[in-house]
Amino acid sequence: MNEKYMHLAVQMARAAAGQTSPNPLVGAVIVKEGEVVGLGAHLKAGEKHAERHALDMAGEKASGAEMYVTLEPCSHTGRTPPCADAIINAGIKKVYVASHDPNPQVAGQGIRKLEAAGINVQKGILKKEAEELNYFFFHFIQTKTPYVTLKMAASIDGKTATSQGESKWITGEESRQDGHQLRHEHDAILVGIETVLADNPSLTTRISGGGSNPLRIILDSKLRTPADARLVTDKQSTWIFATEQCSKEKVRLLRSLGVKVTVLSGFSIDIKEVLEKLGEAEITSLLVEGGGTVHDSFVTENLFQRVVLYTAPILIGGRQSPQSVAGNGIGKLSEAAVLQLHSSVNIGSDVRQIFLRKDEN
Amino acid sequence: MNEKYMHLAVQMARAAAGQTSPNPLVGAVIVKEGEVVGLGAHLKAGEKHAERHALDMAGEKASGAEMYVTLEPCSHTGRTPPCADAIINAGIKKVYVASHDPNPQVAGQGIRKLEAAGINVQKGILKKEAEELNYFFFHFIQTKTPYVTLKMAASIDGKTATSQGESKWITGEESRQDGHQLRHEHDAILVGIETVLADNPSLTTRISGGGSNPLRIILDSKLRTPADARLVTDKQSTWIFATEQCSKEKVRLLRSLGVKVTVLSGFSIDIKEVLEKLGEAEITSLLVEGGGTVHDSFVTENLFQRVVLYTAPILIGGRQSPQSVAGNGIGKLSEAAVLQLHSSVNIGSDVRQIFLRKDEN
Repeated sequence: MNEKYMHLAVQMARAAAGQTSPNPLVGAVIVKEGEVVGLGAHLKAGEKHAERHALDMAGEKASGAEMYVTLEPCSHTGRTPPCADAIINAGIKKVYVASHDPNPQVAGQGIRKLEAAGINVQKGILKKEAEELNYFFFHFIQTKTPYVTLKMAASIDGKTATSQGESKWITGEESRQDGHQLRHEHDAILVGIETVLADNPSLTTRISGGGSNPLRIILDSKLRTPADARLVTDKQSTWIFATEQCSKEKVRLLRSLGVKVTVLSGFSIDIKEVLEKLGEAEITSLLVEGGGTVHDSFVTENLFQRVVLYTAPILIGGRQSPQSVAGNGIGKLSEAAVLQLHSSVNIGSDVRQIFLRKDEN
Repeated sequence: MNEKYMHLAVQMARAAAGQTSPNPLVGAVIVKEGEVVGLGAHLKAGEKHAERHALDMAGEKASGAEMYVTLEPCSHTGRTPPCADAIINAGIKKVYVASHDPNPQVAGQGIRKLEAAGINVQKGILKKEAEELNYFFFHFIQTKTPYVTLKMAASIDGKTATSQGESKWITGEESRQDGHQLRHEHDAILVGIETVLADNPSLTTRISGGGSNPLRIILDSKLRTPADARLVTDKQSTWIFATEQCSKEKVRLLRSLGVKVTVLSGFSIDIKEVLEKLGEAEITSLLVEGGGTVHDSFVTENLFQRVVLYTAPILIGGRQSPQSVAGNGIGKLSEAAVLQLHSSVNIGSDVRQIFLRKDEN
């Protein structure tokens, strides 16, 4: 066993972040007599799994070789036939598996199938790194709702603009670039109608060399999204959630312009219902970009898995200045979800902290 | 030259943090033929300097030895005679100096005196570490006002209590202990009258094995501090800054109870004037513990050097929830002092970030 091969498998898997949804990120390396004979990563749902790509590259050299794979090989026929069978048929003699697949259709069956065929399986090498690859997938496959990331960019004291409303730019260019990488990695991005009306954003991914655009979601109870908003006119996918407060005429208008509109029953938007509908549409990950009132809805309903906070090294102050989480807030400290700091890195002059739920990740 | 001796000198100096004011922290190590022959640190204003202690320990072995000292030896007669003379007289042949003394009464003269006596002086070893020892002293000696630390303890989104006012405790026990260490290290601690009325705090240093209590400062325009407040009755030193809005009778009452009361002219408290008065009283460092309105006064006046932020890993939300910096805030981003992250450490479940002013430290 040499951990460096699993490390390479993790790196290859991570390179496809943002392009495999609703499938997980997976990397595989095949080694024979100390030489790498096959490399693979899962690149896109419906296409070959990592193990298949690696076996293809190895060809006949796979016989008697060892495979390092970041996720338990599948045992069921999904979009492609089971990888466990392919590994057995290729004559692999030993398989190192980093993380289990909690997909109820796999869940240990892949490993059992390999073992039943006489293959030596070793589990848990670089488990933590491998699990981090698939936060989105693991959450989605178990809850049928997207993994929710709250993204905030604020001053040290949690303000997103000055008392006079100046918000461009609190955080620096590097943080904003990093934020575009987040967009690339998530299936969908969500904002409130206030953000649409105030900024007319495009919410696309702008990173050098290109990136995939997330589906744009707007929470818009009264369906006030203007027909000439960028999110409507730019021909990228947009999905608006409204309530019975909206006019049917506006629903028709926006639909005729290519926007998906879902009218929820009642007069206020139920975040849980939105997440269920996104889950049904195979949205495995959702980036919530605010503003403060929208963030507060997710916070008070306790419907988030992660916070990515970009802190600019300034203090703004002001009781009335816009805040990263506003709304009504929680009433009691015991109602707060307990998170823990996962990482803290300097991004330009800013600091990016990632907090994960203690009870989930 | 062996850096480990300067490192030891820095460590000895740091051990006296909070007990040398208004003097700087200084450590000294004397080495002869590869053996440590003298150790010293400055422990208290009016008592011997670090170099003296080390020379005392070395005795006759100082002759021909090398000294490592964290701060340029003094050349003037202050509370004690000049160390430069003592070093020369003891026959030290070489002196390693980590940081310069910006005190106008020293400012290079100590080094020049040593060199004039034929001693080889090498500067700049562990300069950064040595300078960090004396942020307070360097600021004070150059500005005649205390080094101001804004201490905040808040949720990820900058709230210091829930919308229902629950604030005990957002941060954990370890953070609060760390906060007591901050009190120990500062000459004075400052709060607003609202904090006094709401919490009736004692603002003393409670660390295991004891610690020195800072002078307590209250900003209290109308002199509403109750005569039975802990800050008045507990016999520790308290200094209240009021304005012409206060009653003379209340001034007399509080003074009769042993409280120092300064009535500033005008109807609102001028933070700059407060800092100047503290400087005149040889307060070299001030820990501002809030609340949000007090913090805002220092932020909008740009009168602070450092922010120590304890972040609890929760989100609280709420537009009306108490915030770490409230008040009116700055209007334009260009008015904000630019800080930079100096350190980020986990303290229990919380994160402590220290931000320093980019233009000063």
